[in-house]
Formats: sequence, C-alpha cells, structure tokens
Amino acid sequence: MREPRLPEVPVDNADGFTLARLDIGREARCGAPEAVFAQGKTDADTLAIAERLVEQQGHALVTRAGPEAMRLLRERWPGLREAAHAGIALVGAPPPREHAGRWVAVAAAGTSDLPVAEEAAMTLESLGVEARIIADIGVAGLHRLLAQVETLRRAAVVIAVAGMEGALPSVMSGLMAAPVIAVPTSVGYGAHLGGLTAMLGMLGSCSPGISVVNIDNGFGAAVAAARIVANERRLAAT
Amino acid sequence: MREPRLPEVPVDNADGFTLARLDIGREARCGAPEAVFAQGKTDADTLAIAERLVEQQGHALVTRAGPEAMRLLRERWPGLREAAHAGIALVGAPPPREHAGRWVAVAAAGTSDLPVAEEAAMTLESLGVEARIIADIGVAGLHRLLAQVETLRRAAVVIAVAGMEGALPSVMSGLMAAPVIAVPTSVGYGAHLGGLTAMLGMLGSCSPGISVVNIDNGFGAAVAAARIVANERRLAAT
Amino acid sequence: MREPRLPEVPVDNADGFTLARLDIGREARCGAPEAVFAQGKTDADTLAIAERLVEQQGHALVTRAGPEAMRLLRERWPGLREAAHAGIALVGAPPPREHAGRWVAVAAAGTSDLPVAEEAAMTLESLGVEARIIADIGVAGLHRLLAQVETLRRAAVVIAVAGMEGALPSVMSGLMAAPVIAVPTSVGYGAHLGGLTAMLGMLGSCSPGISVVNIDNGFGAAVAAARIVANERRLAAT
Amino acid sequence: MREPRLPEVPVDNADGFTLARLDIGREARCGAPEAVFAQGKTDADTLAIAERLVEQQGHALVTRAGPEAMRLLRERWPGLREAAHAGIALVGAPPPREHAGRWVAVAAAGTSDLPVAEEAAMTLESLGVEARIIADIGVAGLHRLLAQVETLRRAAVVIAVAGMEGALPSVMSGLMAAPVIAVPTSVGYGAHLGGLTAMLGMLGSCSPGISVVNIDNGFGAAVAAARIVANERRLAAT
Amino acid sequence: MREPRLPEVPVDNADGFTLARLDIGREARCGAPEAVFAQGKTDADTLAIAERLVEQQGHALVTRAGPEAMRLLRERWPGLREAAHAGIALVGAPPPREHAGRWVAVAAAGTSDLPVAEEAAMTLESLGVEARIIADIGVAGLHRLLAQVETLRRAAVVIAVAGMEGALPSVMSGLMAAPVIAVPTSVGYGAHLGGLTAMLGMLGSCSPGISVVNIDNGFGAAVAAARIVANERRLAAT
Amino acid sequence: MREPRLPEVPVDNADGFTLARLDIGREARCGAPEAVFAQGKTDADTLAIAERLVEQQGHALVTRAGPEAMRLLRERWPGLREAAHAGIALVGAPPPREHAGRWVAVAAAGTSDLPVAEEAAMTLESLGVEARIIADIGVAGLHRLLAQVETLRRAAVVIAVAGMEGALPSVMSGLMAAPVIAVPTSVGYGAHLGGLTAMLGMLGSCSPGISVVNIDNGFGAAVAAARIVANERRLAAT
Amino acid sequence: MREPRLPEVPVDNADGFTLARLDIGREARCGAPEAVFAQGKTDADTLAIAERLVEQQGHALVTRAGPEAMRLLRERWPGLREAAHAGIALVGAPPPREHAGRWVAVAAAGTSDLPVAEEAAMTLESLGVEARIIADIGVAGLHRLLAQVETLRRAAVVIAVAGMEGALPSVMSGLMAAPVIAVPTSVGYGAHLGGLTAMLGMLGSCSPGISVVNIDNGFGAAVAAARIVANERRLAAT
Amino acid sequence: MREPRLPEVPVDNADGFTLARLDIGREARCGAPEAVFAQGKTDADTLAIAERLVEQQGHALVTRAGPEAMRLLRERWPGLREAAHAGIALVGAPPPREHAGRWVAVAAAGTSDLPVAEEAAMTLESLGVEARIIADIGVAGLHRLLAQVETLRRAAVVIAVAGMEGALPSVMSGLMAAPVIAVPTSVGYGAHLGGLTAMLGMLGSCSPGISVVNIDNGFGAAVAAARIVANERRLAAT
Repeated sequence: MREPRLPEVPVDNADGFTLARLDIGREARCGAPEAVFAQGKTDADTLAIAERLVEQQGHALVTRAGPEAMRLLRERWPGLREAAHAGIALVGAPPPREHAGRWVAVAAAGTSDLPVAEEAAMTLESLGVEARIIADIGVAGLHRLLAQVETLRRAAVVIAVAGMEGALPSVMSGLMAAPVIAVPTSVGYGAHLGGLTAMLGMLGSCSPGISVVNIDNGFGAAVAAARIVANERRLAAT
Repeated sequence: MREPRLPEVPVDNADGFTLARLDIGREARCGAPEAVFAQGKTDADTLAIAERLVEQQGHALVTRAGPEAMRLLRERWPGLREAAHAGIALVGAPPPREHAGRWVAVAAAGTSDLPVAEEAAMTLESLGVEARIIADIGVAGLHRLLAQVETLRRAAVVIAVAGMEGALPSVMSGLMAAPVIAVPTSVGYGAHLGGLTAMLGMLGSCSPGISVVNIDNGFGAAVAAARIVANERRLAAT
Repeated sequence: MREPRLPEVPVDNADGFTLARLDIGREARCGAPEAVFAQGKTDADTLAIAERLVEQQGHALVTRAGPEAMRLLRERWPGLREAAHAGIALVGAPPPREHAGRWVAVAAAGTSDLPVAEEAAMTLESLGVEARIIADIGVAGLHRLLAQVETLRRAAVVIAVAGMEGALPSVMSGLMAAPVIAVPTSVGYGAHLGGLTAMLGMLGSCSPGISVVNIDNGFGAAVAAARIVANERRLAAT
Repeated sequence: MREPRLPEVPVDNADGFTLARLDIGREARCGAPEAVFAQGKTDADTLAIAERLVEQQGHALVTRAGPEAMRLLRERWPGLREAAHAGIALVGAPPPREHAGRWVAVAAAGTSDLPVAEEAAMTLESLGVEARIIADIGVAGLHRLLAQVETLRRAAVVIAVAGMEGALPSVMSGLMAAPVIAVPTSVGYGAHLGGLTAMLGMLGSCSPGISVVNIDNGFGAAVAAARIVANERRLAAT
Repeated sequence: MREPRLPEVPVDNADGFTLARLDIGREARCGAPEAVFAQGKTDADTLAIAERLVEQQGHALVTRAGPEAMRLLRERWPGLREAAHAGIALVGAPPPREHAGRWVAVAAAGTSDLPVAEEAAMTLESLGVEARIIADIGVAGLHRLLAQVETLRRAAVVIAVAGMEGALPSVMSGLMAAPVIAVPTSVGYGAHLGGLTAMLGMLGSCSPGISVVNIDNGFGAAVAAARIVANERRLAAT
Repeated sequence: MREPRLPEVPVDNADGFTLARLDIGREARCGAPEAVFAQGKTDADTLAIAERLVEQQGHALVTRAGPEAMRLLRERWPGLREAAHAGIALVGAPPPREHAGRWVAVAAAGTSDLPVAEEAAMTLESLGVEARIIADIGVAGLHRLLAQVETLRRAAVVIAVAGMEGALPSVMSGLMAAPVIAVPTSVGYGAHLGGLTAMLGMLGSCSPGISVVNIDNGFGAAVAAARIVANERRLAAT
Repeated sequence: MREPRLPEVPVDNADGFTLARLDIGREARCGAPEAVFAQGKTDADTLAIAERLVEQQGHALVTRAGPEAMRLLRERWPGLREAAHAGIALVGAPPPREHAGRWVAVAAAGTSDLPVAEEAAMTLESLGVEARIIADIGVAGLHRLLAQVETLRRAAVVIAVAGMEGALPSVMSGLMAAPVIAVPTSVGYGAHLGGLTAMLGMLGSCSPGISVVNIDNGFGAAVAAARIVANERRLAAT
Repeated sequence: MREPRLPEVPVDNADGFTLARLDIGREARCGAPEAVFAQGKTDADTLAIAERLVEQQGHALVTRAGPEAMRLLRERWPGLREAAHAGIALVGAPPPREHAGRWVAVAAAGTSDLPVAEEAAMTLESLGVEARIIADIGVAGLHRLLAQVETLRRAAVVIAVAGMEGALPSVMSGLMAAPVIAVPTSVGYGAHLGGLTAMLGMLGSCSPGISVVNIDNGFGAAVAAARIVANERRLAAT
C-alpha cells in the first residue's frame, strides 16, 4: 500500500528519540486540532508537546493534567485559561468565536458535575464555539429543569452532564428536538460504580435521540457538539 | 442453644423424604404468609406444596411458575386468578381486603413493564391490600407522568416499575412524599444488562427516599409495601 | 405543580384498562414520532398500539418484534416494509423524504453487522431521511475503508456499525469531519461480551468526536442522526 | 409545556454564575428538605450552599464531606453535630422531634458498620425522627440478634446495616413484621467487591419484605424510613 | 525432567485417535476415582469413557449429563442410580459404605436447591460415604434451622447448599464446630447473577471456618467432604 | 489522503447491493487468506461468500457455522472436510502442506476441549501447516502431561487449549521453550463465567512467554501459530 | 420466639453506648474464639475490644490492622507476635499447641504471597495448631513443587496460597489426598482483577476436592483447617 | 511419583527460612531466565533475590518495583539500566546481543503508552534481543501508522502497545504478516476500565493472527517475542 504523505510534526527528546508525532493536519481533516492528553505522560513530555503545538497552531488544549503539570503550564504560560478542578488548560491565543448565533447548552445535573461541564465549555471555546453552562437542574427537583426548557430549546446542541443515575438526558431528550449528547460523570458512590451506572443508563435510555460519550469526557462531548455546529458549513463546502 | 418450637408443617414425598417445611407461623410473625417460589422445583413438588398451603391457610400464591406448572395449577384449581405472563397464580379463596381506604399505586414506565406490575398487584391482593396499576407513564413523555401526580399523591405507597435506564422512581420521588419502592425490570437490551443497569441506577438515585428490590421482583415490592400499609395497625397493637 | 395538558391518546384493552398512553405530541416536540418497542409486550398489545398509531399519524415503526409478531404485522398490513432479521417493520404509508441532498451514511464493518445497519436505515426512512448503507469496510482490510473515504466525507452524518473490537468508528472519525455516531453490535463471542467490549471501546476511543448508542441500537442512532440532519431547519425556525 | 413556578433559590458565585438552585419547596413536596452532597464540590461551594440553606430553613445537613470540609464547617458553625467518620454534619438549629413514640431501629451487624449507622441516625434526627442504634448483632453469633428481637419488634421501621455477606436483613426480616430497609456497607475485602456483594445479596434475599438502598447510604435509608414514619400523618392530611 | 510412569489408560476412537487418558491411579493418589464430566463431550465419547471406567474400577460416576446422555446411560446400564434433575448417574456396582458411624449432612436452604444436594449425596455414596439430606431449612424461617442444630452437630462434615443470598452457611457455621463446605446454587434471578451473588457472599462471610466450592458444584463439595471424612485414616496410614 | 488501490472483490445480492467486499490480497499481505465468519450472516450470504472465495482462491474456510449452514455447505460441496461440533468446514481443494518438518502441537486439557482443538487443527491445515492434537493432558493428573513433554518440545509452536481454570498453558510454558499460544474454552460452569475465568487466568499467568487468544478461538490461535511457523521464510524474503 | 441466653460481653464506650458484644461462647460452640477484625473500626475501638478479649480469654488475635493500629497494639502489648505486612497481631499469652503430630502445610506459590501465608500460620498458632510454611513452589517451575510432594503428603491439611492465575491448588490437589483449602491472593495486576481471577479459577478447578476462601483470607483458611484438624476429637466427644 | 532433581537455589532469610527457590534451570529449559517480580515483596526480599540471581547468572531483571525499591537498587548497583516510569531495572552485566539482523518492533499508540513499551524493550535487551520503539502511531491519525508500515514489515515480531480502545493491533495485523503480540495499557479512564476494555477488544479483534498479553505487561510480551525470535535456532537444535 502506498503511504500517504500527510503533515506530521515530530517531537523529539534530547536523545533524538521521537516521542510524539503531531497530527497537524487534523483540524483540516476532522474539524478540530490535536489536544494534549496528559494522563500517563511525564510532565516534561506534556510541556514539550504543548509548546510545539502552540508553535504550529497558535494555541493548545491540555486535558487530564495533574496538579504539578497544571503548575508548570501556569508558570510557562502565565494567564492561561484553565478549569483547575477539571485538569484542563488552554494555552496560547484562543481562536476567535465562529458560527455566530449558534451556541451549545451545557446542562449540569448537580453542582458536583460542574468540573466536567467546565471541561466541555472550555473545549468548545478552544474550537471557537460559544458555550453556556446551566447548572443544578437535576431531575430530583423537576421544576428547575422545566424552568429552563424554553432556553434549552434555542441551543444548537445540548450537552447533558449527570452523575448518580444519570436520568437528566432521558428527561431532556423527551422535552426538546435538539441533538442531545449525554456525559455521565463519576459523581456518586457504591452502586454508581465510578460512573458506569450513569453511562449504561444513558445508553439504555427510553428516550431515543441521545448519544453518549465516556465518563467525565466533557472534552469528547464538546468535539462531537462542535462537529454538529459546523455541519451546515461543512456540507455547504463539500 | 435451646430450640424454639414454632409451627412447621412438613411436606413429604412418597418415600417419606421431607422436601419442604412449611413456615405456617410466618403470617403471624412477619405479616405475610409463605408463598411458593416455583423456580427450580419439579412441578410435582410445586403442586404438593401449594396443596398443603391451601389446606393450612385457605389460599396460596405461586410465583415464577413455568407454562407447564401454570397448566397443572389451572387443572387443579379451575378459576384460579393468574397473570400468565408473570408466571404468578393465586389459588384457593383469596383473603378479604383490609386497610379500608388505603391503596398502593403500581406505576409502570412502559407497557412492556406490565407483567411485573401485575405480579405486584396480584401479590398485594393476596395480602388483602388494594392495588391500582397506572401504566405507561415513563419519563420520555413527562406530561403523562405529570398528569397522574395528583392521583399518585393519594396512594399509601408507590411502587415504581421501570426497565431501560429506570429513571421513573427518581423523578416520582422528587414529586411526592409517599414511600417509593422501585422495581427494576429486565425490559431492555445491550447496556441494560438484563435489568442490572436499571437496578443500579435506582440504587444510586439523586432523589433520596427510594428503596429498591430485585429485578422483576414485583412480589417482593408488594410484600414490602404491605408491611408499610399495615404499619400503623401493627404499632398500635404493640 | 400544575400539570401541563399535552395530547395523550390512551390505548385500552377489553376491560377498559389503559395499557398505553400514546405520546402523539412527540413529533412536534422532539422531531420524531413514537415507535412501538415490541420486546416484553404481548403480540396483541403490539398490534393494538401499532393500529392506533397508524390511525393517528398514518404510519408506525415497530422495533424488536419477534417472528410471531412479524407474522401478525404482515398479515394485518400486507406489503409492509421490513427487515426481518432486525425484527423491524414500517407499517402504513411511509412519510415523504425531506432534507433534499442530505443523506446519512450507514457504514457496516462486516456483513454480519448488516441487520443493525438495516434497522438504522429503515428508521431513517420512517423519518423522511435518506440513508445509504456501505457494507463490509472493517479495519482488518483497511483499503476497503480508504476506498470509501471520499464518499463518506459527503454524508451529512456517519453512522458506524461494528461488532468485535469495534475499531471502525475510531478510524473513521480520524479521517473525516462529519458527526460520527457509533453503534456497537452483538456480533462476536467470548471476550466480546455480547457487544459490551465493542461498546466500551467506542466510548473510550482515542479519536474524539464520536458519540455512542446502545448495542445493536440502529434505531437510536438513526433518531440521533435525524436530529442532526434536521438541526439547521429547527434552528432557523426558532 | 407551561413551566410551573416553584420556589427556587439560586446560589451564585462572585462572577454571578449560578452554581446551585436550592429546592426550597422540597420539604413541603417530599417531606424532607434538601441536603448538601459534598462529594465533587469545592469546599467553598459546599459552605456557600450550606450557608444559604441555613438562612432559608434554619439548619442544613451536609453529607460525604472530606476532612477539610468538615474542618471548615466546624470553624463556621462551632458546636455543630457531626459523625466525623461518616463525613456528615448537621449545622444550624436542629428541628424538634416529631412523631412521639415512634422510633427507628438502626441495627449494625458489626462494630465496623457503625459509621453508616451513625449517618442514618443523624439524618433521622435532622428530620425530627428518633433513632436508636443497636450495634454488633451480626449473624455469626445469632444469640446476640435473638436477644434483641423483642426490642426490634417495637420499632416503627428497622434499618439493617451490614457489610461482608450482608445476611443480617434476611434473618431479621424473617423474625418480625416491621418494614426493613437494608443498607449494605463497604466493610469487607476481596469477594466483597467494595460492598456490591452485600448489596446484591440483600436484593436477592430469600426473605421478602426487604428493600435496599445504595452501599453506605445511611442517609437514603433514613429518608426512606422517615417517609414511612410520617406516612399515617400524610395520608390523614390528604 | 524424567517423566514419571503412572498408570494411564487410553480411550481411543475408531480412527485410533486417543480422545481420553484415564487417570486410573487417581483413587490411590487422591482418595477418589476419576468421574466423567459430560459437558462438552459427545454422547458417544461420554459412553465410551464410562464403559472403560467401569471395566477398570467396577463403577463410574457421570456428572453434567444432558437428557439424551442420561437416556443412553439408562439404556446401557438399566437400573443405574441417578438424580435426573441434577444430570448425575452412578453406573456399575457402587462401592461398599466405609467410615462406619461417620456421615455427612447435606443441608439445603430451599426445596429448589435439592438437585444440587442430591448431586452431593450421590457423589458421597459413590465414594462409600454416608450422606443425609436435610431440606428446606433456610434462614427466612430460622426456627426450622434451629430445630435441626442438634442433629447437624453430630455430622462429620456439613455441606450447606443455598441459592439467593446464600446466607445459610454463615448462620450454620456460627452455630457449630464441624467443617462447613458451602455450595452456592443458581436458584434465584436478577441480582442473583446466576449464583455469583450467593458464591461471593459465602466467600465474604462474617463467620470464619467456611470454605466454598463452585456454583451448583455438589460433586466438588462431596469430594472435599470425603477427603475430610477419610483424613484420620489417611494420616494413621502415613 | 490518496486511496490505495488494492484487490477487492465485491459480492452483490440480487438487488445489486454489495454485501461483502472480499479482501483477496490478504494472503499476500498477511500470510493467510480471508475466511468466512458465519455468525450473524444469513445462510444465503454465507454460501454466496464461500462460493466467491472458492472461485478466487480455490478453497474457503467457514467458521462459526450453525447446523443449517453446515447442512447447506455439505450439500453444495459434498466431501468437504469439517469438524461439525466446532461449526467449521473447509470447502474446495485444500492447499498443499508447506514448511516440511515443522508442525504445531495442539494440546487439549480435557476431552471436552476437543472441538476447539479441532478448529485450530483444521485452520492450520487450511493454511498448509501440519497439526497434531494431543488430548486429555490436563493438570489434574500431571503425569499425563509429563509423559508428553519430550514430544511437545519438538513442536514448532504449542497451542494449549483449556477450559475450567485454564492452568495448562502456565504449566506447559514452564516446561519448554516453544512459543505457547493459550486458548481458553467455554467448558465449565458457574465461576467459570463462560470461559472468562480461564481467559483471565491465562493472561495473568505466572509463567511468562504465553500469549492468549479469545475464548474458543481455535481459528485465531492457528493463524497466529502459522505466522510464527512462516516467520523464518518471511524474514528471509524481506 | 424465646431468646436463648448465651454469654455475651458488652464493650461500651465512655457514653455508655454498647459498641460491641463479645461472643465469648464462640470457642465452645464453634471451636475457635472471636478475633478482632480491625478494618472500619477506629483504633480506639480496636484496642478496647482487644483489651476486653484478653481479659476474657487470655489472648486475642487482631486482623486487618493498619500501621497506626499495629503501633498502638505494640505499645500496649510489647513483645506481641505479629506479621506486620499482613496487618495481623496476636496479643496476650498464646494458647498451648494441641493435636500432637498433626500439622498444617501452608504452601505459597511465590515469595509475594508470603504475607497471606503468614496470616494463616499465625492464626493456626493462635488456635494451638502447628503450621509449616513452604514458600515459592509455584507451577512456573514445577520441579520445586514436585520436590515437596512427599513432605506435603504428610500434612493433616494443605492450605495452598497463590496469586496471579492461582493454578497451584489444582496441581497440588491432583497429587495428594489431603484436604486442600485454596487461598487466592491479590498479587498480580490487570487481568488479575485484584485477586478475583485467581479466586474464580480455584473455584472452577478441574481437580475436585478443593474448597476456597476469600482473597487474601489466610485467617479464614486457617480457621477452616483447624476445624478439620480438630474433627476427630470433636466427633469422638459427640 | 519420583521427584526430578532440577537446579533450585534457595534464598533464605536471617532465620534460615527459605523465602525463595530460584529456578536457575529456567533459561536452559524455557529460553529466558527468572526475573524478580517485586510487587508484594518487601524491598529487602527483592534485593536479596536480585543479589542471588546476579551471583548465579551475571544479571537480573527486576519488574514492578516501587520508587523505594528502585532507589535501593540504584544504590546497590550504581549505573544500572532502568525505565523508572515503568518500575523496571536491569542490574548486573547485560547479556550480549544475539540473533543478528533480527529485531522486534515495539509500536506505541500514544506517547502515554511509552512506559510499557520501554518495559518491553528493556526486557528484550535483557534477553539479548534488539528492540526498536516506534512511538505515537495510533489510529486517530492513520497516516502516521501508514508511514511506518514498510519499516514494520521488516521486523521479526511486532509488539503493539495501546491503551484506550486498543485498536492499533487490529489495524496493524491487517497490514503485515509478522506475528503481532498486543499489549493493552492502563492509559485511559471511565469506560476504559483500567485497561480491560483495550484487552478485551484486542482479544475479540476482527483481524486474526493477534495474540494478547496482560494489561501493561510489556515484560510478558517481550518474553513471548523472544521465544519467536529464537524459534528457528531452537528447532534446528532439536
């Protein structure tokens, strides 16, 4: 098979060993640039990769960063935007907002689900998409959700973030026609199984039209939502 | 340890082997008589035990009966009350209804959950408690539930039967003050895990005040509800 | 809480018992009408509900129907459209196709995944959305997928159906910018865990932008895709 | 759908972002006020929410608080009531005891299960219900349980707290007619699976009449028990 | 490594292919002869192996036989001893009873657990050990167990067979000093997980001194019990 | 990305729909031709694909075929080679044997594991590699294995097939230097979890040098073994 | 039911609250005295209970103690016997050794399994039974086990401790006639699932005659072994 | 059974207790010497065993060492080779490289998978086999992998290391004929289940010819690869 020649930017360490190959063409190909997934990387590698990404594309999003990596990022890029609880940071110059008038609603069932909602919101921002967080509208007090329904119906996409039994997306999806992306969170204990119960419940929902991402994966939900927001423009360009 | 002498009625087979020891004192002690759990028993043993229970207490409830056992029960007790889908039958003379004015609401999220709701209702009836089934009020179309809230608030206990993600009890429990007993059902597929997902979700609910029984266990929910209905009378008698 | 008054059409049995409450307003509210989930329902109830839905909205989609239910549906509505392997049937007059020029690609990793792809395609059709199935492009022979990339890039949404390790959506999502909805299938054995492995792998994918529905849930993926296809029109109308 | 107008008290942060919406009507609607679930919240948010709840209803129950949150609560409300091991605190003026003569038995199988029993007892107290803990009556030394049976039979509700194989509720439920709410605990190791084994065993109990809450969820068991204690008064008022 | 030369009797098929290697020395080495585990074998292979075992040692125990294999065994050895529900048969001349005055109690929690108890009893008999089944003494009606305690204390070993939550061995082990071997059964549903819950509960029991065998493994429990019964004689001979 | 042009042979149905795309270049690329995985395919599709494969490459291996598919294959290709229990058939002219003097040992722990061993052996044969099955050498009678060690040490690769606890590969790998591929089987019950326990045990083995394939996957083990047998020739040709 | 009057020694805290009820009759009834399970207890409670047990029976065994509890025990009872890695301590005067000439072999598959073997050995000692540890005889180097077979055959009971795939008991049980009690350990990673894999493998062993205790439960294995060692004396006394 | 006399070197502690039995014959028998698995061992035991291995065979590989053990190893053998992140060290004089011209490719899907790749590479080196790591070629940016295909095809064996959904080995195995050994890693979160999802996906791969080792088990993959590299020499010597 002939190998395609796509842009690939190597990040080498001091020994000349190639520890990462930046996929600089991803934004053109997939609509969203590479981000740095910090889990399992040394802090030095995380920084080196972020540095190179900023060089190439002006900014970089770092996710799943531990406290020490966050500290180093702040030191290197004072004034970066971050959601410390969520271990996420946006370094370099954020891109301008696009898709005027289109925004994504990020609904959080409880206050404890906010870090994941913030991960989604910051990721959307890094992609030039407006995000609005609506917090604490879980189903235990249904009137709080019902009071927001009219607002939610005006969103381009709804990201529904919920832990515990994760019932929020089922109820929301039955109340509106927007695409609903469900994000289970690890908030809960015991039978919650670290978020698996919420995730499985969302997948088995009685309300069709919901699709689901990994536990606490605000980042992935945001990328999926941004693809939907950009869809009309992409199709017009095809 | 000195052994207590409680009433115990042996059921022997032709060889004189004691295959069951009926706990005739259970009603006095626990408020509900023994029932016959047919799973894993030969049909002959199920019938022999039911026969002896009817002798002792006038009626018997048989649960988890297969089609052949149901056929034999019908043959032996023509006109018995049954919910064939649920594999449950009430043979002999049903007890009179007690606890005037107190009734248990059995809410079913979907039409597919009806067999479990019927198991609960028939069990309640076998205990002299009135049951009212309210079907197809799942959360995908919330207005169907909201339309029943006033009715449900007048119930002594609410049994909430739901499969799939099992969100119904969470939403109900946040709308009313009655004790809510949640029954997960095996209706669903894939991520539903045969009902485990609904069960775990109900246990991890964000609405406090819910307690949960086993998957498809309409029988157990009914016995628990009957204990609550009878509670005031029991305490007055203490 | 004051109860809203939304259209709700009861389906009663011979005894006057309300076994279902049709959510006739769902299409207006959520963009897709109610379907009949046949699992766990008696065949009589399935038919009664389908009958009433056809009365109300001209057609009805029945999913998860067993062979006997399929036979009864064919008897009642000769010439219905069906995918027998998938237990899905569309009875009554199908709606006209809308969203001209927008179509959904339904990619199936292997020939064995076709029933689920067909469930998705028939559901899309019942919602007036064009679907094109592209079969047998799994990652074991990558050139088969690469040969379809240009075609797939022109789709409004991509539904990626795969069993076994479920790697197809990860690879596809890295090759194109369309929204990708992943459907794990129960094709496989052993470590496949009835589709759970494919489902979990899709959720944990290294390619962001994927969202996932339940195992074998072609229906749910189609409803989610249809919401995306209809999104621009919905937002313009807001 | 018309939105109901129920009392909702926002808690905003310094930026004017609404991080919580207090459900002040919950006590009237459901019989128990909102509590603060501290897991996943910043300590600042936990305090802000507790503060606002005390303002609104005179006291607040905080559950799942970590050591630092407990320290801050003690600093803010010196003399609060707490069960430090259980991470639970009751701040503000506790409500008066109601339901004279009715009390809830909180039975703990082993001394190691005491923190969960204390969470249940303190929650009951916060709801104005009397609780009595009876510790270390697990089934390995049956006479310890049998010695308490007469006492337990006088309780309005029995909460049975047990780890390991969780056999206590099965045995208790067969000895008395009170409603039994089972609480599995995370006490155990290996095959105990962090409490899942006890939880599943309680759900699959051979003694009907038991209902179950989440692992270590003394709080939820207490709210369920309080609903039962208040049931007669609620029904009389309907 | 030099290979030991132990007695090994090949069973060949018509093509001269060696499909089994009978371990004729196992009784001398381990105290119990080989049995035929029929699951996964063709009926022809099962019969050929049983035939050869009877030739070598006078009798053979066949376990996990399906209905057709049972029919063939009955045809070949009319008058064999069997427990058809348990899929177990003892063909050829059973060995004489040994260990005078020592017997094993096989306690079954419910009537539904009898097939497993019978598998244990028949296996013991095939090893020359006396077995006595005591049925239906589960913990939901504790007095039934307490009434048998004095009898059980005289057994050499107690095999405790229980499904559902499997609490029987915990309670028994706390009442007597005999070695207790727990056998979980697959009797139950839902949270019972096909017997896993009972098995895990027995392993995590609060009563020490219990050891556990596989689900429904009456055979294995019997072999373990027979080793204990024979222990004194074995040690005297060392 | 420019698409490579690799040989791809479509299989179309009567409507011109492409239901499969045969990867005719796989043998050249990967060393083994495509096989037909029959699970989830209609019998008609299975036959059509096999037919086309025989046309293209002279023979075809069909795996996971049900009884009806086996019957149709026999009808179409009388005299095919098959292992009916394993649902595997080799149709058309089998390839000549290659790699003279190199053979693969397929060791089966018990007679019940033979179908999986036969799947491995027939797959090897379809790839031109000699296979020798050595049956019933499980670890419960260690001398049976030790008697085969010298033979096994002469094999090019050892495939170790075992159900239940799956200990055979661990013991074998510690006795010889050949590459050992472990195949867990679904032979067992209860704690065996349909083969998962054997599979997990093999993966966690204390003997390094073992690699593992899916449960009952004799086919995959054979393809992996054939790659090793062909390795020297492949490398010499590079 | 009349309550039996068995010896029960309360341990009260400063407030007069009874936090434990010592089962002083357990040794007479079950052959082994109560031990202190420290997990989940405050260090103060652990010490108070140990203190009271020493008063009553001269010594006490404390299991699952954390480092701080171990430090406090050492401070209170200088010179206690302990296995610090195993979190086990024997305080007070150990009982004299009984059962002359009878000893229990505690075999450990690897050096990493030693803490669990030591827990078993120290427990046996606390019960007056001699224990001999034989370390590092796992199946990866079979000759190490074979070299110990003659020794092991002279043991009254064999406790086989193994992590990873846990194959040791299967192999041992096929080589000797002693009762074999298998103890899975948490030594391993990944597919080992914290010891579950070893545990499940031991339960599903192909060698009958093995019984199993919980993961890392050297204590429970020792109590079970001691019951077997004491069996002849117990039966003679009946 | 006569015991074979194989070389076994005891490691005793100060009390003369044999805590390990070095299997010095393993290299001759199995092609790879014993390594020290440090998990669960005291640091003192780890060092004593490493010391004795170096004495016997010139070098020793220590795996799964914690930070303190690593520190002690460095102190004792300054200048040792190590991959600190992977907790692996090679002490003593490494063996010369053998198998000229044959090398093993160790492909890592992401930078976060490097520690496991390094464990594999260092193990191969300790066995005298050349290893080349190729990092960050995961399937999200397929061109990075395709650019390496020609290189990978020249490797004797390919070790494919991947976390998340673990799709890399499936794609690689379809592109080349080398034996592929898949290593799932614990890189990921939520639905990743600590690496189980990647592991199960690799086992259920649609590309035949893959075999799998435990999560993060670079060591085991390397030993299996080395057996394949040495295979031709071994067979020639037979």
